[in-house]
Amino acid sequence: MPSPKTLEPFFTPKTIAVIGASNTVGKVGYNIFVNLKNSKVKKIFPINPKYKKVQGVKAYSSISELKTKIDMTVISIPAPFVPGALEDCMKSKVKGVVIVSAGFSEVGEKKLTKQIADLIKKYPKTRVIGPNCVGVINTNNNVDTTFFEKSRMKAPKKGNLSFISQSGALAAMIIDWVSAQEFGINKFVSYGNAMDVDEADLLEYFGQDKETKVITVYLEGARDGEKFYRVAKKVSKKKPIVVLKGGKNEQTRQAVASHTGSLAGSAKVYEAVFKQSGIIEADEILDLFNISKLLEKETLPKGNRVQIITNGGGLGLVAADQVISNDLKLSKLSKGTIKKLKKLMPKAIFENPIDLLGDSTVENYMDTINLVNKDKNVDIILVLILFNPPTIKTNNIGIWRKTRKQVSKPTIVCSFGSEFTINYMRKIEEAGFTTFKYPSLAAKALKELVEYSNYLKKN
Amino acid sequence: MPSPKTLEPFFTPKTIAVIGASNTVGKVGYNIFVNLKNSKVKKIFPINPKYKKVQGVKAYSSISELKTKIDMTVISIPAPFVPGALEDCMKSKVKGVVIVSAGFSEVGEKKLTKQIADLIKKYPKTRVIGPNCVGVINTNNNVDTTFFEKSRMKAPKKGNLSFISQSGALAAMIIDWVSAQEFGINKFVSYGNAMDVDEADLLEYFGQDKETKVITVYLEGARDGEKFYRVAKKVSKKKPIVVLKGGKNEQTRQAVASHTGSLAGSAKVYEAVFKQSGIIEADEILDLFNISKLLEKETLPKGNRVQIITNGGGLGLVAADQVISNDLKLSKLSKGTIKKLKKLMPKAIFENPIDLLGDSTVENYMDTINLVNKDKNVDIILVLILFNPPTIKTNNIGIWRKTRKQVSKPTIVCSFGSEFTINYMRKIEEAGFTTFKYPSLAAKALKELVEYSNYLKKN
Repeated sequence: MPSPKTLEPFFTPKTIAVIGASNTVGKVGYNIFVNLKNSKVKKIFPINPKYKKVQGVKAYSSISELKTKIDMTVISIPAPFVPGALEDCMKSKVKGVVIVSAGFSEVGEKKLTKQIADLIKKYPKTRVIGPNCVGVINTNNNVDTTFFEKSRMKAPKKGNLSFISQSGALAAMIIDWVSAQEFGINKFVSYGNAMDVDEADLLEYFGQDKETKVITVYLEGARDGEKFYRVAKKVSKKKPIVVLKGGKNEQTRQAVASHTGSLAGSAKVYEAVFKQSGIIEADEILDLFNISKLLEKETLPKGNRVQIITNGGGLGLVAADQVISNDLKLSKLSKGTIKKLKKLMPKAIFENPIDLLGDSTVENYMDTINLVNKDKNVDIILVLILFNPPTIKTNNIGIWRKTRKQVSKPTIVCSFGSEFTINYMRKIEEAGFTTFKYPSLAAKALKELVEYSNYLKKN
Repeated sequence: MPSPKTLEPFFTPKTIAVIGASNTVGKVGYNIFVNLKNSKVKKIFPINPKYKKVQGVKAYSSISELKTKIDMTVISIPAPFVPGALEDCMKSKVKGVVIVSAGFSEVGEKKLTKQIADLIKKYPKTRVIGPNCVGVINTNNNVDTTFFEKSRMKAPKKGNLSFISQSGALAAMIIDWVSAQEFGINKFVSYGNAMDVDEADLLEYFGQDKETKVITVYLEGARDGEKFYRVAKKVSKKKPIVVLKGGKNEQTRQAVASHTGSLAGSAKVYEAVFKQSGIIEADEILDLFNISKLLEKETLPKGNRVQIITNGGGLGLVAADQVISNDLKLSKLSKGTIKKLKKLMPKAIFENPIDLLGDSTVENYMDTINLVNKDKNVDIILVLILFNPPTIKTNNIGIWRKTRKQVSKPTIVCSFGSEFTINYMRKIEEAGFTTFKYPSLAAKALKELVEYSNYLKKN
């Protein structure tokens, strides 16, 4: 297995060439060049024999014409021309090639697929991502090889989560969605048919990437199951890997085969592989990112004992049900903590859920969070707030920030509503807390946090 | 059991009195009067011996002073004064009384609770909602007895779904949240301690209410289990009842007792009661409204065979997994349908999921939906769209509306993303389709639709 360092040119290239860069608005080669021109990389070369200039930049007819050494080349031309262009790149010692073009194994095209496979074998120093992929995004330098228009696919914010996806279209959709969320992405790779760089290579790369804290993966089928298992087992000890497996069922597995041409494998085999290699498996897209976001922001809990704090009995009850049905436990506050809390808030109910009652204040919440954080009987704090009561003032976000700095245990704040609640929750998130809308989603993600923590203790 | 018609004065009163109406900004009695003044009911009387006028309206010192017959009175005064005020109402033959005040059985107050119980027995012609509740909202005439400020709790849009909630605070949160959703509410009742009007009475009322199509319930514990079962079994044959049960687990049941003072009953007993009485049980808040919304908008499916239509393979795969794991089946298109579709779209893949491919158009979607709708092998249509491809034009919402009118089977459109997608999806919803963000949520709600449909066939 080549060093993960060989993938560096895809993420931090100093020079980029685009084979198939175009002047025709709306074409894939047009959009790729627009997106890459907006990156921090200064030396970008369009390769297209049809043009003298592409989008105002001097064009070249082939990669061999360039005198500059190229770190990354993006290929976006019809499939039959790809092997030739790829060989040009390899002969010119390009370090990384992203083949965006489709029309290979995923449509049963064998001849062209074999030509590419042979080239990859012959020139192992050039790493290849694709074909049939959307490529790479790095939010640190805005390198972006995707071909979707920015009006329809917004760029994600910068975060500490890196996202690997076998499917390009689904990933593009997810990334656009992430751009409207309160968390960000560090790097993204869609690797398509995985003829050279596969999911295991990318796991290895992100495992040693200092900017990546959590690795989030959409996987349909691993190209090399054993390699995937080996790498995942190693990497998951350093940082969490969260995977959504597409094509889990017998019926859907047949659909996978026709989609990316990879072997989906039985759901049970994958579940076992995930479990034994320390991979956190998500049930669905929403969970995939809820779990990842939680792992990115919070420390791992020491156990599964959750203390709920609320200002509404019904809401606390619903959350308690979710805690229990997700294999978490309701913690039992120590007598010392209850005594201190009762002194501060004589009327409130200090059980689990703690009910601070409808006339409680933000200060009451902060005092409670701080004391619960110090209680050795509590591993996780789940804060629920109804924002309807006027005693919940809006002018005190500073004390949220202060409290967050004092609190060491995983702490989640949940609420949902319209404008007032949405705005307030955004401020709480900005103050450093992890927020979720519904307690059900928080509990589901917390369960995985606890399981991963247990895995690390045993392995 | 009194006729459900006796509850009519709570929803369509012609005259309203507010005992405890206040001029002090921020007080419960202030907010209630503000909200009721904004209703379409013209005759609203503040009752407060402290004031000559409340918010510019002539005040009275007691209900007996009024010459007008009062349909509904809202009581918001300290608990010790409630029995006296209630008796005044009853003697004056007020038809319905909402007791917003708290401080009764829910805090273990026995004497005042008994006084109220005795009055309810003595004057059965006056119906009582509460105490310890937020009361009633009717979006048809804007009658609204809740006491939350409108800046923090927006009014819901008008819809065909009526919502019953034991918990007032949780309901207020949910209603505020609903105001920002694309569906609406017809009527809402928070009934608190249920000393007279209980969940069964309200089920019966909404069962015969022509404006209510779906009954959505948050329940902690039924006051009279047998009555609840009997009424639910009858009503569920006429219209769907969707229930979220708070306090499902042994541990949380103890918390219920301290919250509304009602007996929560074992989760298994409730599950059995729900199943046998045709009630649809939701796992969590989000499901409660997803299922309700789906039932409000779509017809019941004849079976559980779902046809997925997508323009992205990965997305289709993830949705197919969700369909299968929610006990639904992937349908098999008939040969005739495939032949017709292939003629229109020779390159697309007509399996399940149908993959219209990344360069498909809205017209391709409409043609496919129409033909799939006619296929007798399909019961439900699940449409997934990636909005990234520029071939998906935005200027053709009219054909969505036209298609919706032609399609008879339950049809859901799923997509998620940022601005572009959100705006487009809103238009699709306005065109008449039911939309969900994630296929997982759609599949979960569809499962309940199928189960309810099966229940009706057998009962």
